[in-house]
Amino acid sequence: MSSTLEKQISFAHTHHIDTINDLMELVRIPSISTEPEHVADIQKAAAWIAEYLRKMNVQNVQIMPTGGHPVVFGELKAAKPTEQTVLIYGHYDVQPPEPLDLWESDPFEPVIRGGRLYGRGTSDMKGQSLACLAAVKALQSTGELPVNLKFIFEGEEEIGSPNLAKFLKANKELFQSDFALNPDAGMISVDCPNIVYGLRGLAYFELRVYGPSHDLHSGTFGGSVLNPANALSELIAGMHDENYRVTLPGFYDKVRSITPKEHAEFATLPMDESYYLEQTGVTELWGEKGFLPAEQVGARPTLDVNGLLAGFTGKGSKTVIPAWAMAKISMRLVPDQDAGEVKKQLEAFLIAKAPKAIRWELDQMASGPACATDPFSKASNTLYKALEETWGTKPAYKREGGSVPIVGEMQEILGFDSVLTGFGLPDDNVHSPNERLHLETFYKGIEALIRFFNYLGEEK
Amino acid sequence: MSSTLEKQISFAHTHHIDTINDLMELVRIPSISTEPEHVADIQKAAAWIAEYLRKMNVQNVQIMPTGGHPVVFGELKAAKPTEQTVLIYGHYDVQPPEPLDLWESDPFEPVIRGGRLYGRGTSDMKGQSLACLAAVKALQSTGELPVNLKFIFEGEEEIGSPNLAKFLKANKELFQSDFALNPDAGMISVDCPNIVYGLRGLAYFELRVYGPSHDLHSGTFGGSVLNPANALSELIAGMHDENYRVTLPGFYDKVRSITPKEHAEFATLPMDESYYLEQTGVTELWGEKGFLPAEQVGARPTLDVNGLLAGFTGKGSKTVIPAWAMAKISMRLVPDQDAGEVKKQLEAFLIAKAPKAIRWELDQMASGPACATDPFSKASNTLYKALEETWGTKPAYKREGGSVPIVGEMQEILGFDSVLTGFGLPDDNVHSPNERLHLETFYKGIEALIRFFNYLGEEK
Repeated sequence: MSSTLEKQISFAHTHHIDTINDLMELVRIPSISTEPEHVADIQKAAAWIAEYLRKMNVQNVQIMPTGGHPVVFGELKAAKPTEQTVLIYGHYDVQPPEPLDLWESDPFEPVIRGGRLYGRGTSDMKGQSLACLAAVKALQSTGELPVNLKFIFEGEEEIGSPNLAKFLKANKELFQSDFALNPDAGMISVDCPNIVYGLRGLAYFELRVYGPSHDLHSGTFGGSVLNPANALSELIAGMHDENYRVTLPGFYDKVRSITPKEHAEFATLPMDESYYLEQTGVTELWGEKGFLPAEQVGARPTLDVNGLLAGFTGKGSKTVIPAWAMAKISMRLVPDQDAGEVKKQLEAFLIAKAPKAIRWELDQMASGPACATDPFSKASNTLYKALEETWGTKPAYKREGGSVPIVGEMQEILGFDSVLTGFGLPDDNVHSPNERLHLETFYKGIEALIRFFNYLGEEK
Repeated sequence: MSSTLEKQISFAHTHHIDTINDLMELVRIPSISTEPEHVADIQKAAAWIAEYLRKMNVQNVQIMPTGGHPVVFGELKAAKPTEQTVLIYGHYDVQPPEPLDLWESDPFEPVIRGGRLYGRGTSDMKGQSLACLAAVKALQSTGELPVNLKFIFEGEEEIGSPNLAKFLKANKELFQSDFALNPDAGMISVDCPNIVYGLRGLAYFELRVYGPSHDLHSGTFGGSVLNPANALSELIAGMHDENYRVTLPGFYDKVRSITPKEHAEFATLPMDESYYLEQTGVTELWGEKGFLPAEQVGARPTLDVNGLLAGFTGKGSKTVIPAWAMAKISMRLVPDQDAGEVKKQLEAFLIAKAPKAIRWELDQMASGPACATDPFSKASNTLYKALEETWGTKPAYKREGGSVPIVGEMQEILGFDSVLTGFGLPDDNVHSPNERLHLETFYKGIEALIRFFNYLGEEK
């Protein structure tokens, strides 16, 4: 290990406590992108990031308006002239914390318990974002910034980045880079770092079913009208067949098949049935017949209900036929499905299946394409080396079930790939109550990133 | 018309405004029986009724504890000795007012608009209860109480009277009467009074389906686990077949068939398709194939979802696989179904159909038998005469879709029948937002009750 690298890693170690304090400050801002009442918090978080970058002497820091929540930009030149530029991606928005009663501590008052920092956004991805910045600070400590850096922190990732494509199109020049580093993908386990080379896309809908003009007494009218909650249940049930394949017409037409080589890779991942049982807490796995769990998640599309609401949901009983019922329904998409086409498929399904005795309305709330990146690009190979040296084990290559719309959009609009990694763990309770960040892994992640940037510089 | 009867009706007319003021006072007490936070209001409403009875010189007024909310009792002797005793039934509890945003005025701050009094409980059945008491006051005004009266006002009707059977068993002597007058059944239309001779029973359940140990990220895990909200939807969908018959095993085994004579009666009721379309606001009726709408409601059992809840239901999108999903499901029962047997049928269905990948829990929250009374009993014939003279039209005989557990329980425990009528209208929005009472019909109801009691006295 070069003495510069040693010094940088040592710098990072001695400053971990500062980074955690900074992270706690950022987590305290409830920057929930989906809830209009948190717009001020979103702005506060963007300002916090901008100020943080400025303190790091990042140049040209800007809080840039988009059609929705702002993007924070900044750039840093390498110590020696180089043409290589890495765009570091992060998002400062978080998921809603609900259900609040399941949190063991306040989601927006972070606390450390058992080597983990608890709070909404600690792992996804305020923590991952600050890991990148901590690594950059370590590079700066020796004055050896080996590559040019640009920064993009968005505030709408958790709502599907609805305004990002337009924003990138309008600012192509500014974001031009060789590739993006995107640490929003997690690890397989505490001992298994990985490089993600595929992400699923997303199509998210709210389906509302309307029946009677008002809630009806279920005695006086029960039997003569179609209950919207029953009708909605039937529609949802019809969206899967007995092999748990999605029945929307044409849903699988464009789904890219898993090649024998890919299947072999999926089979070697340390993500077998017992892994998924442990991570999810279910007693039995479930899914589309004929695929490995890692394939079901990484390479096959799904349809899930994310929310249901109708009628009386309080304690006790109320004998109503509800006037309406609502479901939030989303599909995870794989290459080469298209979210717009999936909407049409869902509409076609509803037109064919919904009884005339009800009326339905469908809103598309978020969408983004699936994407695949080159797992053996130069940048990806460099990252592989940095991860391997830090963990002392060979990283896995993985296709991830989640969606990061920006990866596909950067490919399409800016013309460059992302390398996807991350230091969140599968039991970080991301999007769930008691979200947490495993600090030892977080520190290793910072170390891996320091190596990564150094090795990038050496390539030149 | 005898001059006594004339005087009593005239007394009622001049005191309508007082009765409405009293009713408004009672409606202001949010005596919601299903919500634990309203226990104090329940007690307040019981105390209000007891005080009201005492002011009427009702004897032996008692607020009697039950296993749940109290029963108010009282009695009045006839002016001349008679053995005939009528038990007047009412309930002082109400349904929850939700959804609150659909109310045009505060549900517990009654207001008169367009000849109707708006507020929760105005029609069901604080209004009907006070109609009985207004009629009794009119009888008292001439000192001519023609029959002995007993009063029972319960506080748990809207939650299925779970403690009433035990209470009646322990107090048989006190409630002993010749028959009960139960004005908790409504009218078919403003011009059509009716006598109800059958009521459906109720079996009400909360079904909870559990999957993952916590809400999961729908990207990271979607495809590998059975989503409880999807599973619940499928279970609910499976509870009806393509003819919209309930599929629970044995559900129809004990259902009493509709006789050709009954069918002919149902066909003559002024409750055809257009009636139900108008009352419900649906664009198309729906229900078990092969029956008239009035039969579907009056003489056939149903299964309805009364509430659905799972995952994220706020504005916007949240990409979770919920850890659990909940449905409130209730069946309306007809003679000779049994609510306990229906629970077993539902359990058998769930055991057979629920995948092992989920866990379910079932709570029975309310239950009561269906019942049929003799539409041609002496008391019923007397009521017929009183209704006919008041409205100037022949009353209809009707089997009602709602449930009033006490009717069956009085038959079984106390050994006497109820005569069922009521002066609520089908568009009173009972159990719904903007519940209301049509004042002109309410006044006619009081008049009909005055006649009824007088004619009962004449029979002796």
